[in-house]
Amino acid sequence: MPNLLYAQSGGVTATINATASAVIASVRRHPDRIGRVYAARNGIIGVLRERLIDTRHESDEAIAALAHTPGGAFGSCRFKLKSLEQDRAHYQRLIDVLRAHDIRYFLYNGGNDSADTSLKISQIAAQLGHELHCIGVPKTIDNDLAETDVCPGFGSVAKYVAVSTREASLDVLSMAESSTRVFVLEVMGRHAGWIAAAAGLAGRKDGDPPHIILFPEVVFDEARFLAAVKDAVERHGYCTIIASEGVRGPDGKFLAEAGTRDAFGHVQLGGVGPLIADKVRAAHGYKYHWAVADYLQRSARHIASRTDLTISRKVGAAAVELALAGQNAVMPVVRRLSDRPYRYAIEPAPLSAIANRERKLPANYIRADGFGITAAARRYLEPLIAGEAYPPYVDGLPDYVRLKNRAVKPRLPAYEV
Amino acid sequence: MPNLLYAQSGGVTATINATASAVIASVRRHPDRIGRVYAARNGIIGVLRERLIDTRHESDEAIAALAHTPGGAFGSCRFKLKSLEQDRAHYQRLIDVLRAHDIRYFLYNGGNDSADTSLKISQIAAQLGHELHCIGVPKTIDNDLAETDVCPGFGSVAKYVAVSTREASLDVLSMAESSTRVFVLEVMGRHAGWIAAAAGLAGRKDGDPPHIILFPEVVFDEARFLAAVKDAVERHGYCTIIASEGVRGPDGKFLAEAGTRDAFGHVQLGGVGPLIADKVRAAHGYKYHWAVADYLQRSARHIASRTDLTISRKVGAAAVELALAGQNAVMPVVRRLSDRPYRYAIEPAPLSAIANRERKLPANYIRADGFGITAAARRYLEPLIAGEAYPPYVDGLPDYVRLKNRAVKPRLPAYEV
Repeated sequence: MPNLLYAQSGGVTATINATASAVIASVRRHPDRIGRVYAARNGIIGVLRERLIDTRHESDEAIAALAHTPGGAFGSCRFKLKSLEQDRAHYQRLIDVLRAHDIRYFLYNGGNDSADTSLKISQIAAQLGHELHCIGVPKTIDNDLAETDVCPGFGSVAKYVAVSTREASLDVLSMAESSTRVFVLEVMGRHAGWIAAAAGLAGRKDGDPPHIILFPEVVFDEARFLAAVKDAVERHGYCTIIASEGVRGPDGKFLAEAGTRDAFGHVQLGGVGPLIADKVRAAHGYKYHWAVADYLQRSARHIASRTDLTISRKVGAAAVELALAGQNAVMPVVRRLSDRPYRYAIEPAPLSAIANRERKLPANYIRADGFGITAAARRYLEPLIAGEAYPPYVDGLPDYVRLKNRAVKPRLPAYEV
Repeated sequence: MPNLLYAQSGGVTATINATASAVIASVRRHPDRIGRVYAARNGIIGVLRERLIDTRHESDEAIAALAHTPGGAFGSCRFKLKSLEQDRAHYQRLIDVLRAHDIRYFLYNGGNDSADTSLKISQIAAQLGHELHCIGVPKTIDNDLAETDVCPGFGSVAKYVAVSTREASLDVLSMAESSTRVFVLEVMGRHAGWIAAAAGLAGRKDGDPPHIILFPEVVFDEARFLAAVKDAVERHGYCTIIASEGVRGPDGKFLAEAGTRDAFGHVQLGGVGPLIADKVRAAHGYKYHWAVADYLQRSARHIASRTDLTISRKVGAAAVELALAGQNAVMPVVRRLSDRPYRYAIEPAPLSAIANRERKLPANYIRADGFGITAAARRYLEPLIAGEAYPPYVDGLPDYVRLKNRAVKPRLPAYEV
């Protein structure tokens, strides 16, 4: 019987393992159709190195527990394959590995780079005559995939950021009379302000925090920003600021450009929070605090959105069904049917419509002054953070599972990447 | 009938309002003994300014909801009164205000500075012939108060830090093969490493994160630290580092105050987290991420410890009982009776034994290599993070209460501070 390979790619999320859990559980319901579920150790790198994991050794309980465990249980990677021409040897190797292990179903769980990789693998498989059903499975906290209403993983980081904004703002408000008046929370979002926008959910009425959101989509205007901070402090006594890591100045450069680059060649960011806070101090002398949530925001399974968790599981199950239905080069995506109550359908979309595209925050989600969200944004975002989905706790800590991750014996010569 | 005044002081916590809730609810059960509960707006500053809040206007439901609301509902302050001689006018004014509103019970909810203030107020009241029962009520995430097993507020920040450490470490582990290998989480604790120590609870067995904890109590030895990072990365593939904001170098100065410059010659902004991370990159070239939890850690009511919440409420109720029993210049503290199950008694301790003292992490809680916690520390800390106490949610967000905070009409001339 043919086997299925599942791999995780790119930055992990609080719910990517919930997708993995659903994939494996779904295959286990089809013992007549699919033999084994292999997982690649560290994403596509693991396929190239023929470092596969045999998930047969994991109990049903362990697979169920994956659904409440953050991070990427099989390891992820940042590794971008180039074009079929430039990286021919890699693509050839991938097909060799799939063939050697009789893998006819490949489920690649990632963002738009991974959708591109999946698409190319489906093409090379056809060229080389290896029957393969390539299914992209969506995941990214950035929420920037085309074709889908929402990206699995986003709802949970959105909830984390909205909850943290509300909580920290109550703290600042308490201290503002004689101490801290300005609080800056730096959140992820290099090119798209979806995560920063979610912080806006923390406020319900005029004057509620956050008072200022800095989006990557809005050019940072220092004078206007500093005036808005002063106005908030004078009117409300304090000012909560949400800063996207990807805020850019009029020169088009990231405010906090650190100089270092990651494996994809993306500039590694960090530090716009303290930078913004210092600008406020220099201009107005207000005492400030700043926080950088970084990985805490995308691994915070303890405050995951139930809606996000459900969607993350559904796309996993749908990916298996699409594969079994003979589909290829598609991704199960979310189509919204109504806002409130939130209703949606999971449907296949072609990978060619998703690969390498990037969905930015629509202009009508950003308030006219550029520092907040609109009612339309709220209508879009609110259902995505709805519901809680707490993990089980032992001795005060979430009881996250660690899989056995038992290796499959390689059948091919070693291959270095 | 005499009235009671409650005030919040210093940095707020996820559970200080739970103490306030218990104080007010307890007084409401004694309508025959105490007239009104006034709250000072912004702590002792509010008393000096005669800005009092009449809590009669808050419903029982609102007072109950305070128990799940972080921050300081009446405002807090950073304002330290000096000696009775130096600040004579302030102390005289405080007594004038208490007298003007027939306040015979004063409950001051804070740390060791506030215990000192409470003690001095009890002394001046006696000198000036105003009958007053001064009760200190403990609160501080720093967990540095003498006489008590634990400080209300600490268990919740400890839980937040331990949970976040476990979660973020799963993220780093997933990424380490081809991307981030080192993760630094900066936590609060300027002089005592209690919060950093709590991160150690995230690991159960050898090799579990956090791999390195940097305590304020241990002089930072850069060479030994960098060797430990390398060792962790080589043995486990990644390294999670918890850095107390109060880490100091051999010169006794905070590392974060070192005035370091980045590659472009700009003074590096921000705390010890990014600084430590950059040292690792410079020495080993590992890709890193860092987070600074800042206010998020102490306002995270969404992940409060049930044990902490219970203690926070009990000290509030006990403070009222002590006041009614005619005690003065005492604080209800926690005496541990057993570790597991955690059993404790709430008992009065004299403010004179608490004022201006600071309890550091005992030497036997720090591992011999200085980078971790011992079994004794674990035995102490584990019960403090036990149990969850989730707030109610509406539309995906915690439903925190905002009180009316209706002002009491002043009876005295204005007084500026």
